[in-house]
Amino acid sequence: MVYDLLIIGGGPAGYRAAERAGHKKMSVVLFEERSLGGVCLNEGCMPTKTLLYSAKLYDYAKGGAHKYGVDASNATIDHAAVVARKDKVVKMLVSGVAAQMKGAKVEVVSASAKFTGKSAEGFTVEAAGKSYTGKKVIIASGSTAAVPPIPGLKDAVAAGIALTNREILALKEAPKSLIVLGGGVIGLEMASYFNSIGTEVTVVEMMDKIGGPTDTEMCKYLQELYTQKGVKFLLSTKAVSVNGNKLGIENASGKSELSADKILVAVGRRANTAALNCDAINLYTERGAIPTDDHMRTNIPGVYAVGDVNGKSMLAHTAYREAEVAVNVIAGEEDRMSYSAIPSVIYTNPELASVGETEETAKAKGLKFRVVKLPLTFAGRYIAENEGGKGFMKMILDENDILIGAAIAGNPGSEMIFGMAIAVEKHLSCKALSKVVFPHPTVGEIFREAVISQI
Amino acid sequence: MVYDLLIIGGGPAGYRAAERAGHKKMSVVLFEERSLGGVCLNEGCMPTKTLLYSAKLYDYAKGGAHKYGVDASNATIDHAAVVARKDKVVKMLVSGVAAQMKGAKVEVVSASAKFTGKSAEGFTVEAAGKSYTGKKVIIASGSTAAVPPIPGLKDAVAAGIALTNREILALKEAPKSLIVLGGGVIGLEMASYFNSIGTEVTVVEMMDKIGGPTDTEMCKYLQELYTQKGVKFLLSTKAVSVNGNKLGIENASGKSELSADKILVAVGRRANTAALNCDAINLYTERGAIPTDDHMRTNIPGVYAVGDVNGKSMLAHTAYREAEVAVNVIAGEEDRMSYSAIPSVIYTNPELASVGETEETAKAKGLKFRVVKLPLTFAGRYIAENEGGKGFMKMILDENDILIGAAIAGNPGSEMIFGMAIAVEKHLSCKALSKVVFPHPTVGEIFREAVISQI
Repeated sequence: MVYDLLIIGGGPAGYRAAERAGHKKMSVVLFEERSLGGVCLNEGCMPTKTLLYSAKLYDYAKGGAHKYGVDASNATIDHAAVVARKDKVVKMLVSGVAAQMKGAKVEVVSASAKFTGKSAEGFTVEAAGKSYTGKKVIIASGSTAAVPPIPGLKDAVAAGIALTNREILALKEAPKSLIVLGGGVIGLEMASYFNSIGTEVTVVEMMDKIGGPTDTEMCKYLQELYTQKGVKFLLSTKAVSVNGNKLGIENASGKSELSADKILVAVGRRANTAALNCDAINLYTERGAIPTDDHMRTNIPGVYAVGDVNGKSMLAHTAYREAEVAVNVIAGEEDRMSYSAIPSVIYTNPELASVGETEETAKAKGLKFRVVKLPLTFAGRYIAENEGGKGFMKMILDENDILIGAAIAGNPGSEMIFGMAIAVEKHLSCKALSKVVFPHPTVGEIFREAVISQI
Repeated sequence: MVYDLLIIGGGPAGYRAAERAGHKKMSVVLFEERSLGGVCLNEGCMPTKTLLYSAKLYDYAKGGAHKYGVDASNATIDHAAVVARKDKVVKMLVSGVAAQMKGAKVEVVSASAKFTGKSAEGFTVEAAGKSYTGKKVIIASGSTAAVPPIPGLKDAVAAGIALTNREILALKEAPKSLIVLGGGVIGLEMASYFNSIGTEVTVVEMMDKIGGPTDTEMCKYLQELYTQKGVKFLLSTKAVSVNGNKLGIENASGKSELSADKILVAVGRRANTAALNCDAINLYTERGAIPTDDHMRTNIPGVYAVGDVNGKSMLAHTAYREAEVAVNVIAGEEDRMSYSAIPSVIYTNPELASVGETEETAKAKGLKFRVVKLPLTFAGRYIAENEGGKGFMKMILDENDILIGAAIAGNPGSEMIFGMAIAVEKHLSCKALSKVVFPHPTVGEIFREAVISQI
C-alpha cells in the first residue's frame, strides 16, 4: 500500500500533523519509537508543569499564605508523591494522544523509522524491519538534550550523577543539592522546582544572563527573586570538567570547583537526524538540523520538517503550528508559517511570558520602536493577589503604534500572553486595542492600561 | 472660573473620565462624596477579590493540595486578618486613584454634587455649598444595592442582620450561617467566600438559575460544584418576609422559613440619580437611570452619563470604556461605545468567564450560529493543575465562522477571556485565529483547540 503521508516522530509536531492529515482524509502512518507525545508530554513541558504546580501550592502554603490571613506553615511536600502524580498525568496525556490518533484513523507504528530511498510511488521508509511507502513525508523526529564534550561528563551521566531532563524527572528522591548546568528555560524551571522543595540549587550559566533570549530586564528580576529564595547563580561561568560529584568551573575569578548530589545538564538540545538516514534521499541537513522554508518544505520536494528537528524554534507550540502549515500545504491549501508572534514562557514562580520582539531583538534588527513599561501593581488584582509583588509588563510598539512585542513578569503571564500574541499576529495598533473591553479586576488589564497610556 | 468638564462621581467611570480628560488638557473637577474609587474599589470588585484570593489559598491548602503531593491539611484561615488585609489593599488602591487624579491635574471635591441649572457659560452644579460651572458634564454617580420592599427587610437592615455588599465586607467576625438573597455575581462571590471559611450558606434565587445572564450550562456546573461544597441553593424561590433572623420564603413547595445569623441582600442595583436634581436641567431619566446613546450622550447636549448610572451594563470595565468614549466625543474625536464584546466574570472557584453572545442570547436574537464545546481536559495544563476537574469552554460562531461569543468554566478564565474579547471585538474568524500560536502548555490553548477543531 502507498500511504498519502508518512510521519516520523510522535511528539507535538508529529501527532498534530497526523491528526490534521487524518482529519483531511489522508492515509497516514506515524512512527514513534518511544512513547506517543514525545519529549513534551513524557519528559518535558507537561511533567515539569505538573511538578511546578505542586511546588507552587507548597510555596503558597509554606511561604506566602500568612500574608493573606491563611496559616499553612506546617505544610509538607512529598517529592515521591509529586513524581507519582506526574507519572499518572503523563499516562493520561499519552493515552489521550493515542485516542486522538485512533479517532483520526492514523496507523501508529511503535518503532524508529529511517529513509531507504525513493521509488516512482513515493518515499520508502523502514521501521521494525518493514517497509512503508508514502507520497509525502513529514519529519518530526524532535530533539535530544545535548551533552557537551566536557571531560568527565559522559562518565557522570553513566554513573547517574549527571542527568538530563529525562532522568531528573524520574528521580524518586529529591537530591540534597543540585547543580544546574545551563540557565535557560529548562534549567530555570527545574531549579525553581527543586528550590521549592528544599534542594540546595546552583545554576551555572555561560552567558552573562539567565533565561536565554527572554527580555534581559525580566531575567534580572527573576534572578533577584530566586537569589532571595536561596538559588545561587554563577553567570559568565564555564563548566570545564566533571569528576564524580564535582564540577570544575572557570570564570573571571579563575578556576574553582563545585560539588552536588546531582548535576542537571540543560545546555541546549540537538535535532534528531542521525538515525533518519537522510542521505538515502539526499535530504540536506545543516548542523544536524533540517532547514525548511515557510511552507515547511525541505530541499526535497514532498518532504517536510516540522518541530524541533528543523532547529528553528524548539517549542511545542511552534511545532503544532508548523505541523498544521505542512499539512495544509500538502493538501494544497494556502498557508505559511510566521515566526513573528511565537509566545515563550518560563514557568517559574512568577512566570515570565513574552511574545514577539523584545527591546534587544528590536534594537538588533534596527527597528524603529518604543518601549512602554508598567508595574503590574497598576492592575488592582495583582495587588490583591501578590502582596509586595514587583512584577511588570513591557510592550514594544513600532513607529505606527502597532504592537510588535509584549512581555509579562508575573502570574498568570502564561495564560495572558496569547491575547498579546493575537494582537501582534494581527498587527493591532494601540488605537484598535483601546476599543477592546477587558474584564475588571484582572491582572491582564495591565495590557489595556499600557495601551490607553499611549493614546 | 468655568471648567471644561465637571464629573459627578469618583468611581471607575468618573476617575477614568477625569484621568483621560486631564490627559487631554481639559480643566476638570471631580465630585465624590464618599471615597475615591467608588463601589468597585471600596466595597465591590476589589475587596471581594482580596477576600476570594485568601479563600482560594485556603481551599487549595485545606482541600486540594494533598492531591498534588502537598500536605497542608492543618491550614487555618483568620477572617479578621483577611478583612484587615482587604482594608489595607483598598487603602492602597484608593490612594493610587488620588495620585492619578493629581497627576492628571484634576481638582477633586469631596462632596456630593447636584445640578442647579444652566447659564450661558455652562452647567451649574452645587457641592458643599459652592457653585461650579462646567461647559460639559459627565455623570458617573454609580449605583447602590437595591433593598426590595420585602416586609421586615428594612428593619433587619437597621438591626444589622440584613447587610448589603457594603456592610458584609466590613464584618470582623464570620457569621456561622448566612442567607444570600440573590444568586447573581455578587451573591455567588460572597457565598463562595463564606463557604470557604466555614459559614453555612444558603442562596435564595427568584429565577430558575443562578448566575444571571451567564451561560445556563456553566451556571448549572457551578451550582453542582458548590452544592458538593455544602452550599444550599433554593431556586425559583421568592423571599416574602423578614422577621429578625428569619426569612420567609415561597416556592413550588409552598411557604416556609429559613434562619441565619446574617442575610446578604444582593438582588440587584439601582442607579444613583435621586440626589442629582436632574430636573434642574431637564435631564431625562428612565426607571431611575439616565439613558444614553452610543456616544454616551443624554437627552441634554453637553451632558453625558457613563458607568452604572446609565443602567446599561453595571460593570466597572464597561464604565472605563464608556468614560473613554465620552471624553473622546467631548474632545471631538470619533469614538463609539460597543456592547458586543463586554466580558463578564464570576470570581468563584472555579471562575466563570464569558464574552459576547451565549447560546441563549444568540437564540433569543434569532442569529444563525453554532456552538463548539470542549472539556478543559483537552488542554494538558488543565489536567496538570486540576485533578479531577470537569471544566469546559464554549465558543459561539456565526454563519461565517466568526467568533461572536466565548465562555470558560475554569481557572484562570478571568485572565484568559480578554483574548477572546479581542477576537470577538475584531470579528476574527476561526481561520484567522488558527494562525495565532498559543503557548504550550496552557489552559488557554483550549481556545486554539476549539478553533482548530472547526477547520
